[in-house]
Amino acid sequence: MSPPAGAAPGGRPRVLIIGGGFGGLFAAKFLRRADVDITLVERTNHHLFQPLLYQVATGILSPGAVAPPLREVLKKHANVTVELGEVTGFDLAARTVHVQHPLVSSDLPYDYLIFGIGVGSSYFGHPEFALHAPTMKTVDDALALRTRIFGAFEMAELAQDEAERRAWLTFAVVGGGPTGVEVAGQIAELAHRSLGRNFRHFDPRDTTVLLFEGGDEILPSFGDRLSGKATRELTRLGVDVRVKTRVTDVTHDEIIVTGSDGDERIPCHTKVWAAGVAASPLARSLADATGAQVDRAGRIEVLPDCTLPGHPEIYVVGDVMALDGLPGVAEVAMQTGIHAAASIKREVSGHGGPRPFKYRDLGSMAAVSRFRAIVDFKGIRVAGFIGWLMWAFIHLTFLTGFTNRFVAAVRWVLSFVGRSRTERALGWDRTRATFAAPEAWHHASSPDPPDPPDRG
Amino acid sequence: MSPPAGAAPGGRPRVLIIGGGFGGLFAAKFLRRADVDITLVERTNHHLFQPLLYQVATGILSPGAVAPPLREVLKKHANVTVELGEVTGFDLAARTVHVQHPLVSSDLPYDYLIFGIGVGSSYFGHPEFALHAPTMKTVDDALALRTRIFGAFEMAELAQDEAERRAWLTFAVVGGGPTGVEVAGQIAELAHRSLGRNFRHFDPRDTTVLLFEGGDEILPSFGDRLSGKATRELTRLGVDVRVKTRVTDVTHDEIIVTGSDGDERIPCHTKVWAAGVAASPLARSLADATGAQVDRAGRIEVLPDCTLPGHPEIYVVGDVMALDGLPGVAEVAMQTGIHAAASIKREVSGHGGPRPFKYRDLGSMAAVSRFRAIVDFKGIRVAGFIGWLMWAFIHLTFLTGFTNRFVAAVRWVLSFVGRSRTERALGWDRTRATFAAPEAWHHASSPDPPDPPDRG
Repeated sequence: MSPPAGAAPGGRPRVLIIGGGFGGLFAAKFLRRADVDITLVERTNHHLFQPLLYQVATGILSPGAVAPPLREVLKKHANVTVELGEVTGFDLAARTVHVQHPLVSSDLPYDYLIFGIGVGSSYFGHPEFALHAPTMKTVDDALALRTRIFGAFEMAELAQDEAERRAWLTFAVVGGGPTGVEVAGQIAELAHRSLGRNFRHFDPRDTTVLLFEGGDEILPSFGDRLSGKATRELTRLGVDVRVKTRVTDVTHDEIIVTGSDGDERIPCHTKVWAAGVAASPLARSLADATGAQVDRAGRIEVLPDCTLPGHPEIYVVGDVMALDGLPGVAEVAMQTGIHAAASIKREVSGHGGPRPFKYRDLGSMAAVSRFRAIVDFKGIRVAGFIGWLMWAFIHLTFLTGFTNRFVAAVRWVLSFVGRSRTERALGWDRTRATFAAPEAWHHASSPDPPDPPDRG
Repeated sequence: MSPPAGAAPGGRPRVLIIGGGFGGLFAAKFLRRADVDITLVERTNHHLFQPLLYQVATGILSPGAVAPPLREVLKKHANVTVELGEVTGFDLAARTVHVQHPLVSSDLPYDYLIFGIGVGSSYFGHPEFALHAPTMKTVDDALALRTRIFGAFEMAELAQDEAERRAWLTFAVVGGGPTGVEVAGQIAELAHRSLGRNFRHFDPRDTTVLLFEGGDEILPSFGDRLSGKATRELTRLGVDVRVKTRVTDVTHDEIIVTGSDGDERIPCHTKVWAAGVAASPLARSLADATGAQVDRAGRIEVLPDCTLPGHPEIYVVGDVMALDGLPGVAEVAMQTGIHAAASIKREVSGHGGPRPFKYRDLGSMAAVSRFRAIVDFKGIRVAGFIGWLMWAFIHLTFLTGFTNRFVAAVRWVLSFVGRSRTERALGWDRTRATFAAPEAWHHASSPDPPDPPDRG
C-alpha cells in the first residue's frame, strides 16, 4: 500500500479535531479503528449535552449529568489524545493550529482538520443586552442563570414594595425555539409546582413568565398544529406567550418590547436570551485564511462535502458550518462529524475520497413541560404524553454514558413525579456578585440605594 | 397566663437565629410548635451537610445533595421566615441585629437571639497560605477545590517536563483530622480507581498524596488502635501519611514542611488546608458587645447554659461556641441548637428557665476510603466494613430530606461499587482563572513563562 495522502513523515496521518461537541466527539468516536492519530482540543474538559442544559439552569440536573468528561468518554479510544485549550489561530501553509492552554501554548500539526466549535448567541446588534439578558450555551452560563432564577425568588422575598416584588417575580424568555420554550416551561413549573410554601411574603404561583417570539408562532418548524398545542400547553402552565413581538431594549429592571399593540415597558429583573446565533471570530479567521465565505451569522460556508474551497483537508462540522440552510441542531452536528470522519477514513485507507454530505432528517422534538412534548418524526407529528415518552427515550439514549442516563432518569422521577428541584444551592459570593452589581442599585423604586457591600 | 418574658409589644416573642448550620437549623425545627415567631438569617440559601462536603470536592456528589435549601427544609414550619443576608453588627440595647442583604439592609429585632455562624479555618498566623492552600468550608470552596483537583490532572497531561508533571501529580493535605483523612483518601481513590486510561502522557496511579499532621498520630481522638488502622488503610490506598510534621511555608508550586528529618521542600501544586479553626470577626464583635471572652480560636466562651454573661436572651451554639472544650462537630452543634430552643420554649411557655447544657457524646466516625471507616460509638470502637456500614447509615439518616438521601445513595453505588466520578465538569473561565493566575507563571522549571492569556 502506498503511504496515505497527507501522512506525517514516518507516522500515521494526524487528525486534529477542534471542539468536543456533538460534531467533534462523534468524529473522534467514528475514527476509533482508523489508522490515524487524533488530537481533540476543547476549552472545557467535557462534552456538553446541550439539549438538557436548561434542566441544569432550572435546578433539575447537576452539571455532571449533562457534561461527561471527554477523557472518560474516549478512554478506550487509544488513538485519541484530549487537550484542554483554546484555539487562537491557524497557519494553513504549515498545517498547524495555535492553541493557548491554561499555562502554556503550543502549535499542533495536522494532516486533517475537523473544525466544530459551535456558535454563540446573537443579540442582533445589541451586545449590551448580554449583561442583563444572559444566554445559555455553557455549563457556566447555566449555573449563572440558575443563580439568577433562584436568586430572583430570594430577592422577591426581600423586596421593599409590591412593584419591586412584581419585577422580581417576572421572568422574560426571548426566543420561541425549543430552548426558549423549554426554559419558559420549566420556570413556570418551578414557580407553580416546586416552590410551594417556601416563601412568607408572596405566593410563588403569582410568578409571571413571558415568552417573546418575533415571528408569527413559536416552534414554527413543527408546523401550525404542534405549535398551537405547545402554545396552549405553555398557557396552561401560566406562560404568557407573545408572538410577533420584538425586544427593542433590555435594562437591568425592564424589558422593552414592541408588538401589534405598540411599545410596552415591562418591569422584569430576570431575562433569558434564547434567540439568534453568532459564530465566534475564530470562525471568520478560518474562513478568511481559506477564502471561504461566512453567512450573516458568521458561520462558514462549506462545499457540499463539508470541506473548504482549496482545502480538502479541512472539514467544518456542526453549528458553525453553513450548508444548504441546515438547522443548528445536534443531529446535524453528529451527522456532519461522522461524515467528515468517514471521508478521512476512506481517504487514508485508500478507499476513495470525500462525497457530498446528505442529511438524514430524523425529526425534532421539544419538551414543553413535564410529561408533555411535541415531536416531529419524519412527518409523524405527536404531542402530549406519548411525545414526552419519545422525548425521554431519545434523550436518555443519546445522553453519554450509563451513569449519566441513570442519574438523569432518577432526577426526572424526583422532579417530575415528585416536585423537588434539588440543585438549588446558591453560594454567597456569587449571589452577592449577581444581585449587588452596581447597575442593580439604581432601581426606580429604590430612591435610596444601600451602600455597596464590602467586596473584601 | 402572664405575658412571657421578652415578648414583643402586642406580639409573640421573636426568635432571631443567625446561621442555618446544624445549630441554627435544629433550633428552628425544634421550635416548630412553640408560640414564637422565628427569623433565620443565612448568607446562603441552604443548610450545608458539611461532613459530606469532601465528596463534592472529589466529584462524587453534586452540591444539591449536601446543600438542601433552608426554605424547602422549613416550608412546613409556618412560624419560620428565612432571610438571605449577612449579619454585620449588633445593637444589644435596642435588641436589633444589622443585616446586609444583597440589595438592601435591615435591622431585625429580637427577643431571643441564637448565634450559630460556625467557624472558618485558621492558618496559624499565615493568612497568605490561603491563596495556595485553600480550605473547604462552603459549597463554593468545594467547587473551587474540585476545579483544582481535576484541573491538576489536566495540567499534568499538558506538562512540558517530568518535574513539572510530578508537581501536578502531587497533592498535599494539611491536617490529620476527619476532613483531612477523608479528602486524602478520596483523592487517592480518584487517582487509583477512577481515572484509569483517561490520560495519554502519564498513569494517574503515579499520583502522590501526602497527608501532613503536626501531632503524633492522625485522628488522635479515636485512640491509638483506630488511628493505626486508619494509617494503614491510607497507606494501602497510596497516601503517604507524615505525622509530627509541620507545614512551615506554602508557595504556588511547593510545600515546605519540617519534621524529624529536618526541613523538606516538596514540589506540589495542589494543597488542601484542613487544619485549625478560627471564628470570624463577627464573633468577636458579639463577644465584645457583651463582655464575653473569646478563646484563642476566637470562639465565644459561654455560660454553662450556652448564654452570654448578662444576656440570658442570647445563646451561642455550635462551632463558634467555646464550652468545656467540646469539639467542633455536627453533634455538638445539633445538641446546643436544640438546647437553646428548648430553653426558650420553656421560658416563653412559663415552664422554667435555662438549664446547663449536657453533651451526650454519641461518638464520632471518619470514612477513610470506600467501604472502610472507623467508628467510636460510646467507647465501642469499630473499623473496616462494619464501620463503613455504620458510617453510611448514620450519614444517610442525618442527611436532610428523602431526595438527598436517595441521590447520595445512588451516587455512592455509582462511585464506590462502580468507579465513576460524574461531577467533573470544569468551565473554561474558572479553569483559566485558576491555572493561569499570575503567581503560577513563575514556576522554577519554566524559565520562559508564556505570555498571560487574553482575559477578554
